[in-house]
Amino acid sequence: MKEKELIQIIKSTLNSNYIGDDCAYLKDLGIVVTQDSLVEDVHFKMDYMTPYQLGYKSVMVNISDICASGAEPKYITISLSLPKHVDEDFVKNFYEGAKDACGEVKIVGGDLTGSDKIFVSVTAIGSTKSRKISSRSNAKKGYKVIVSGEHGNSAKGLQLLLSGKTEPAKFINAHLMPIAQREFSEKIASNADYDYAMMDTSDGLGDALMQIAKASGVTISIDTSKIPHDSSVDMERVLYGGEDYQLVAVVPDSGDFTCIGEVTSGKTGIIIDGIFYSNIDDKLYKHFEENK
Amino acid sequence: MKEKELIQIIKSTLNSNYIGDDCAYLKDLGIVVTQDSLVEDVHFKMDYMTPYQLGYKSVMVNISDICASGAEPKYITISLSLPKHVDEDFVKNFYEGAKDACGEVKIVGGDLTGSDKIFVSVTAIGSTKSRKISSRSNAKKGYKVIVSGEHGNSAKGLQLLLSGKTEPAKFINAHLMPIAQREFSEKIASNADYDYAMMDTSDGLGDALMQIAKASGVTISIDTSKIPHDSSVDMERVLYGGEDYQLVAVVPDSGDFTCIGEVTSGKTGIIIDGIFYSNIDDKLYKHFEENK
Repeated sequence: MKEKELIQIIKSTLNSNYIGDDCAYLKDLGIVVTQDSLVEDVHFKMDYMTPYQLGYKSVMVNISDICASGAEPKYITISLSLPKHVDEDFVKNFYEGAKDACGEVKIVGGDLTGSDKIFVSVTAIGSTKSRKISSRSNAKKGYKVIVSGEHGNSAKGLQLLLSGKTEPAKFINAHLMPIAQREFSEKIASNADYDYAMMDTSDGLGDALMQIAKASGVTISIDTSKIPHDSSVDMERVLYGGEDYQLVAVVPDSGDFTCIGEVTSGKTGIIIDGIFYSNIDDKLYKHFEENK
Repeated sequence: MKEKELIQIIKSTLNSNYIGDDCAYLKDLGIVVTQDSLVEDVHFKMDYMTPYQLGYKSVMVNISDICASGAEPKYITISLSLPKHVDEDFVKNFYEGAKDACGEVKIVGGDLTGSDKIFVSVTAIGSTKSRKISSRSNAKKGYKVIVSGEHGNSAKGLQLLLSGKTEPAKFINAHLMPIAQREFSEKIASNADYDYAMMDTSDGLGDALMQIAKASGVTISIDTSKIPHDSSVDMERVLYGGEDYQLVAVVPDSGDFTCIGEVTSGKTGIIIDGIFYSNIDDKLYKHFEENK
């Protein structure tokens, strides 16, 4: 079974309103919370990644989820499961990386257990104080689509790593050491007086736009020539590569941000350079299949 | 390396005040948070446990941690990693169990990934509103040691399960379907006007008392004849068996609770029936070694 079908089963079993956005917004406590796991040989391989980078990225991707909600990232807990052959240096370097990803965020707990493969599960908590929280169902006709940073660099970095290369550093770092877009998030969410949708591009820019279009019941139309990207990265990776941890927001006014499109009338889905897609499931990136 | 030594490395790497209690107390947000993982063949085996029971127990042990802090359990996120052979029914039954363990607590998020073995990581969040939060460093001379429920039943249940037995239900259920002591916790923590120490007995009653004694720098003296337990369970399991998820608290006045001892003057450690122990590391329960 595919993940999306299993998530439907979870939703119907729990009959929960909370499952849907990357973060759960717990209004009564004034917080958002998110939890994501990284599994060795599913999400990463240690033959191209140091323990420091693993700790760093595990934390950063969860901080990115908090940023996507518009909340202020505050606290992290880390559950780490390690095979017996893993030593003291691994743990020390992993936590050095985790700490360096945090910035002002504090690591406040978690646990450590044994396992066959390395397994990292990180929970991040953000404060909603003075922030307007995003929902992917908030896109409205006439809203503009804005993005942070360059797209596709992480997928290119992974391609290089899987073929044994360790440079150019720009792409390698985009994959191994992504940077959550805290400032972009803060600018959008601080004291915003409108509803807006925001997601990170963990599963790709195209996927994020499709998720927002579906949750909001709108058409989102974009012009790929406006998407910031390195000229050496092909458009498939720019749109569907994922793991860039850039932010894409759908807001009433694009202001000074990079605008790549807008919400139009029509069927639920996305329009890319004039071509309509009601789903892009066949385009989603497969981590370890492409280069085998 | 042992877990406790690795945790020391984590503490010194992070230089954090938060790592120590089972829950982190985040005063600025008015919450406590805890995260615990259960790994197949390390913490459980599916040959004696149903997916429903796994979902139930994974959630309940985290609710128990929140109860041990004195906070009110409110929200859960679940990260579940599953091998390919696991089907739709597993996911449905797992979440049915998780939901039934929750009571008033809400499951609000998490993720689902692939893996070689089943891996469950649960985060629980509690509200500190109208509650005084415990710390294991709060025990003071003259304080009384009080406990909830019967001790040792879970370890006996595990022994029965590992030898292929499925009854008596009392012991089997104590191991597979433990019950967090929400009422005990609420009675202690609601509007308490004194500092107190409280822990659950996930790693055993003896271990909880030793952790409190060490963190508080006190001697805790107990009388084993006063510990509630089934007469068929040996005292080793009562003291060190673990996984009962009962609560033990060290409070100024025992009131109507079951009192098993008190804090006395002397060296840091515990006195069991008159015999002093400065550590009990050799007595801690090994899940899957005893019965091989």
